[in-house]
Order: sequence, then structure tokens, then C-alpha cells
Amino acid sequence: MKAPFPVYVALIHSPVLDRNKALITSSVTNMDLHDIARSCRTFGVDGYFVVHPSPDEQALNRRILSHWFSGYGERSHPTRKDALGLVDLVADYGQVLKAIEERTGLLPLQVGTSARQEGPKHMSQAQVISAREKTPVLLVFGTGYGLSPEWHQKLDAFMGPISGPTEFNHLSVRSAVAIYLDRLFGVSRH
Amino acid sequence: MKAPFPVYVALIHSPVLDRNKALITSSVTNMDLHDIARSCRTFGVDGYFVVHPSPDEQALNRRILSHWFSGYGERSHPTRKDALGLVDLVADYGQVLKAIEERTGLLPLQVGTSARQEGPKHMSQAQVISAREKTPVLLVFGTGYGLSPEWHQKLDAFMGPISGPTEFNHLSVRSAVAIYLDRLFGVSRH
Repeated sequence: MKAPFPVYVALIHSPVLDRNKALITSSVTNMDLHDIARSCRTFGVDGYFVVHPSPDEQALNRRILSHWFSGYGERSHPTRKDALGLVDLVADYGQVLKAIEERTGLLPLQVGTSARQEGPKHMSQAQVISAREKTPVLLVFGTGYGLSPEWHQKLDAFMGPISGPTEFNHLSVRSAVAIYLDRLFGVSRH
Repeated sequence: MKAPFPVYVALIHSPVLDRNKALITSSVTNMDLHDIARSCRTFGVDGYFVVHPSPDEQALNRRILSHWFSGYGERSHPTRKDALGLVDLVADYGQVLKAIEERTGLLPLQVGTSARQEGPKHMSQAQVISAREKTPVLLVFGTGYGLSPEWHQKLDAFMGPISGPTEFNHLSVRSAVAIYLDRLFGVSRH
């Protein structure tokens, strides 16, 4: 089998929905940087883009992350540096596409995820895995209460929601990313 | 098919390992309460025990949780109350077993999880799913750098580690719980 193309994750903070379905810009949650970077590193993701429009928010998070790249943070938790090295803090979604194009020479297939109903752009997990044989893939996750409707126009495809045996569909974005990456790239050991 | 027996999750804070493999008592991480409760609620877990020996730590966390059970917290985020209603803060592991015996009349099969190598008590995910047809199941997770060696004596079985296509095995406990619950109880939608 040919080596698959690179895969990337983008975490979107604007525009996303709040609990009343209003359009908002959410703050960056520090735990999203750590947990999602660790999941990305585990499952072989090539880059993790944290997209937030505020330069101040980016500067703050860049400074907090720097703790893990030198001095005590690096010495005490070397594996954390390894995971957080995947993180790119960028201002808008266009920069994500530009960065991937610069690294791979190609624009990625852009696949959103949604906790809600499957729409006309539905793509199965198996189809996403297959797509990686032909093109880089970018998995797009929304913070808050999820990606706003304009993303449903903008992106190429959407994977269906993660469900358990209940009607409850309020996983944290950290848990949702972990589960999608395991479903797509996890190695099953019985 | 007969309805399966209840399943429970326990999050252990003592004794667990630190990064130098020393035995420690870890602090409760607030995000562990929320993310893991939301995963438990999604995947049909019947109760989530947070085990910490300090009465002060328990009182603090009980007070923080109470925010979500009345007043503004309840009104603004009703689904959070729904998930956090699964949480029981208890002082030691014996109390977990006692509570499950009181609720079900049976002692559960006690299944640990480990990011390290499979040992002689290895149990596959399929075996854990089958076991639920005969007995309640308790899934035991360690904070910090994982469950200490004495848990390998104490528990009945261990599920193998979650792996991706890399050698990196430092998922957050929040991500690990989410993935194990999805693997055991998730509904696959293609």
C-alpha cells in the first residue's frame, strides 16, 4: 500500500455557535491545546492548527505554550513538547489551507464534523480513510456548540456524529477529536 | 438479547504513578469531572466514581459541581447537569465496590486500563462487552502516569493500551476514557 498523504486537524473558534445558536468567537481553552495535540501525536496527525482571529489571544497562547519548549517545562515533560510541537496558532482558516498547500503542494480535502444530523455532504469514515490515498485531508472541528452554518457551505464533506446508545450528544470537543482520530487511524488490539 | 448489566467508571487519584514512577496522590482536575461525565452520559455508563482520599478535595469539588445543579448553572447548561449527575465523589475504592453492590446486588467485574504492555490478566474489548451479559462491569482508570502496580494485583483484568500508528502513548485520561467507551459502547455510523 502506498504511504497515505498527510492529515491535519483544525480547531475553529470563529464563527462557531453558542448554546442559543448565535454566532460567536470562542476563547481558546488551554486544555484543547494539550489534549488534542496529544491525540494528534498518538494517531499520526501531521499538524494541528488552532484558528483564532485575535492576535492577543494568539500571543497569550504562544507564550503559555513556550513554557513546554525550553527550561523546566521541556526537561520535566519532554513528551509534552513532542505533542505540542504539532500546534500552529493561526489567525484565519485561509492560513490553514495556505500552510498545507506550502507543505504538500496540494489543497486538502476539507472534512467537517458535526454532532448533528447528517446532510447532503455526508462522507463515511471509510471514505475519509480512502481519500487519504489520493490527497491530504484536513479534519475541521468547531469549539463552542459547533461549526456555524457557513462551514457547511465552505467545507467539502462532513462525517456523521459520534453516537452511543443514548440520545445525549454533548461530548467535549477534546473527546470528540480523540474518538474520530481513533476511529480513522487507531490500531485495534484485541 | 438480554439487557446488559450496568457499567461503571472509576477515576483513581491514589495511588497512581508520577512521571518518575513514584507513588503519588494526584489532585482532581476539574476538566476530568466534566469531560468524563459527558463521555459516560453519551455512552450509557450508569455511574462515574471519582476516587480521592482527601475530604477537603472532595468538599471543594462537590461545591464546584453544585454550581451546575441549581440557579444559573442549571438554567444555562441543563445538559451539563444531566451528565454531572452521574458523578459520585468517594474517598476510597472500597466505597465504589460497596455502592455498586448496593445498587445491583452484585460485585462488578473490575477491569483496569493501561497505556503499557499487556500482562497475564489481559482481557479483550470483545470479552468485556460479553462479560456485561453476566455481571456489572467497572472500568478503572488512573490519573497521573497511570495505575500503580498494586492495582495489577487488585483488579480482575486489564484491557490493552490504545494505539495509533505511532509509538507515542501519552493520551490524556480524558481522551483515553472517551476512546475506550466508544470502542466498547459506541454506535458506528457509516
